[in-house]
Amino acid sequence: MALIVQKYGGTSVGTTERIKNVAKRIARFQKEGHQLVIVVSAMTGETNRLIGLAKDIQASPDPRELDVVVSTGEQVTIGLLSMALMEQGLKARSYTGPQVRILTDNTHTKARILKIDEDRIRQDLDEGHVVVVAGFQGVDEAGNITTLGRGGSDTTGVALAAALHADECQIYTDVDGVYTTDPRIVPEARKLDRITFEEMLEMASLGSKVLQIRSVEFAGKYKVKLRVLSSFQEDGEGTLITVEEDSSMEQPIISGIAFNRDEAKLTVLGVPDRPGIAYQILGPIADANLDVDMIIQNVGHDGTTDFSFTVNRSEFDKARGVLEEVKAHIGAREVVGDKGICKVSAVGVGMRSHPGVASKMFRTLAEEGINIQMISTSEIKISVVLDEKYLELAVRVLHKAFELDHAN
Amino acid sequence: MALIVQKYGGTSVGTTERIKNVAKRIARFQKEGHQLVIVVSAMTGETNRLIGLAKDIQASPDPRELDVVVSTGEQVTIGLLSMALMEQGLKARSYTGPQVRILTDNTHTKARILKIDEDRIRQDLDEGHVVVVAGFQGVDEAGNITTLGRGGSDTTGVALAAALHADECQIYTDVDGVYTTDPRIVPEARKLDRITFEEMLEMASLGSKVLQIRSVEFAGKYKVKLRVLSSFQEDGEGTLITVEEDSSMEQPIISGIAFNRDEAKLTVLGVPDRPGIAYQILGPIADANLDVDMIIQNVGHDGTTDFSFTVNRSEFDKARGVLEEVKAHIGAREVVGDKGICKVSAVGVGMRSHPGVASKMFRTLAEEGINIQMISTSEIKISVVLDEKYLELAVRVLHKAFELDHAN
Repeated sequence: MALIVQKYGGTSVGTTERIKNVAKRIARFQKEGHQLVIVVSAMTGETNRLIGLAKDIQASPDPRELDVVVSTGEQVTIGLLSMALMEQGLKARSYTGPQVRILTDNTHTKARILKIDEDRIRQDLDEGHVVVVAGFQGVDEAGNITTLGRGGSDTTGVALAAALHADECQIYTDVDGVYTTDPRIVPEARKLDRITFEEMLEMASLGSKVLQIRSVEFAGKYKVKLRVLSSFQEDGEGTLITVEEDSSMEQPIISGIAFNRDEAKLTVLGVPDRPGIAYQILGPIADANLDVDMIIQNVGHDGTTDFSFTVNRSEFDKARGVLEEVKAHIGAREVVGDKGICKVSAVGVGMRSHPGVASKMFRTLAEEGINIQMISTSEIKISVVLDEKYLELAVRVLHKAFELDHAN
Repeated sequence: MALIVQKYGGTSVGTTERIKNVAKRIARFQKEGHQLVIVVSAMTGETNRLIGLAKDIQASPDPRELDVVVSTGEQVTIGLLSMALMEQGLKARSYTGPQVRILTDNTHTKARILKIDEDRIRQDLDEGHVVVVAGFQGVDEAGNITTLGRGGSDTTGVALAAALHADECQIYTDVDGVYTTDPRIVPEARKLDRITFEEMLEMASLGSKVLQIRSVEFAGKYKVKLRVLSSFQEDGEGTLITVEEDSSMEQPIISGIAFNRDEAKLTVLGVPDRPGIAYQILGPIADANLDVDMIIQNVGHDGTTDFSFTVNRSEFDKARGVLEEVKAHIGAREVVGDKGICKVSAVGVGMRSHPGVASKMFRTLAEEGINIQMISTSEIKISVVLDEKYLELAVRVLHKAFELDHAN
């Protein structure tokens, strides 16, 4: 008997029919003798409908009240799924985030989980219940309803698996696993049987469609065995995200090609090249709650340097505004930006022991006449910023160059 | 400066536009210097949508899980209204029933309020906030979400007014007050400026469209000054529901003609006429959680009697099933029922000091050839059960006979 946490996303529970199907799947698992905790998202479209109502009233909805409104989406699903489980003859009981209680900090719309009381869940499991928990939500110390931000249901699943020391956390979604790249761009893309946490983290942009990145970090930190599966397929092992590199087989050099079209580039030109300048630029950006992705500072000349970074495209205008103020303060020359970019990355733990990956990547792009605007590397990833018009082409040629279309 | 609890029903908050209008109205009250606690229902149609989803999954939805699902309706409204109040420049904060905390018993879908913690609300009020509370819902001792049943938002409003010792509880709805009878049946029906709690209770069936009957009981018990108003009219005093009879003016004999088409009649024929028989019949009915309205037992003859009562039409089949079992147990002859009935009542505290109301009522109906099936009287009400086809006719002739179309 294993204790399994399963998370079903919005499309998996998008209609009452689909909720019934999920209940049948859960019933089969229970018959195998497993204890089950189920985490669910809001039904497809529901979160957007609720945000739409809020924006009808406030252009920038108050974060506390937005959480009150949006958290109802998951609450509806837990009740409906519990009913569907009872129709399958199972004992089931639902809990909202506040009921569990999933304690978070008080950063509304982007809260972080601090602690989970697992006593009540464990008692229900011991009494033979399937426990159904609302994803994406929690409660702060003062009793206010909080949400974890988009995709937070994955994080709820992993956090529950960690708190309960579950044997596995299964994320059911509308894809059957993690692919070498997006099959809509490269039809030859292959499903990976396993991938390491580190790679999955680097594949963030691909992962964002499959797994919320924070949930992967969480799973890595607490050593939760995480598996991505399709809720629309009967069989299939999905992709297992593991702590260890698989030493029993030859590692491929590259596991996948990730990309992201939601980025924008900002550069501060003519920055005085003195200690502390990076902090003076990025401090105000962080204070404004803006997430920064790639950061690049070239060696300076003439006592000044250029400082570039990328942000989420939706936050470009806000970030630019912050930089204009910073510019005057630090005595920089100019702030320039570009929303028409994309980021493409080659990811793989294998590159640790295989030099030459970077040069192969650059050569492949050069052969297609694709200009590289920025480069950033980590131990297991090489990312380049390109004009967004090259995205599909770059992904296709890199996928082929690293032979990702051949099973290993 | 007064402390006012205002309750806005589903049609008053049926769209985001209407929510904005409610916020403007509240802003005007606040400018007058009042402290305000606002109770809201779910947006029109939302509760039915949610029940529909539940019934897609379970023909008889599990009560605990139904409460989890349905309570989201009001939760959406409190968030949206709080945002709209902020847009009006007010400080606002929303609370769900569990957050307040509105403690109830654990009778899911029909819970009763046991206790309200008013500390947090009072602190918010003192800090200048408008406090927005979800109607209809609460939490039991074990932390489960409960709902108070249809119309329970009125009860939430009155209970909060009682707990906070508010100066007035205003129920905003789509009608501008309590009428002598339903204007859709009698166009000459007049709005009453005031009505006593006792009369309002007896006018239950009319009141059910305006005020939930339990909220009136609650208001009477805790001496809450209750007023019914239209949320679509700028001015208007509505109808005040008072504890005292107004001694300064001549009481009309009858305040209104109430009616109810949702009843059904059940009769147990040939019941052995012995002590305890009423309990033996109605005990199992109460155990099955069925509400009984009129109860009539005639004097017996030949050692047996006939026992009749009315129930909500939707519970007729269930009640009949219970009676068939009771029949065998107590040795009665037969159970007969009729779903095609209605109840019409003349209500007024004035009838205490005016004999002859009953005979006038019976004569009026007889002149129209309307047969009376059952009669039940209280100190301030005379109710008759009629074939439902006579409902409109009976209401019209009684409204005229008691001169309710003339202002007093």
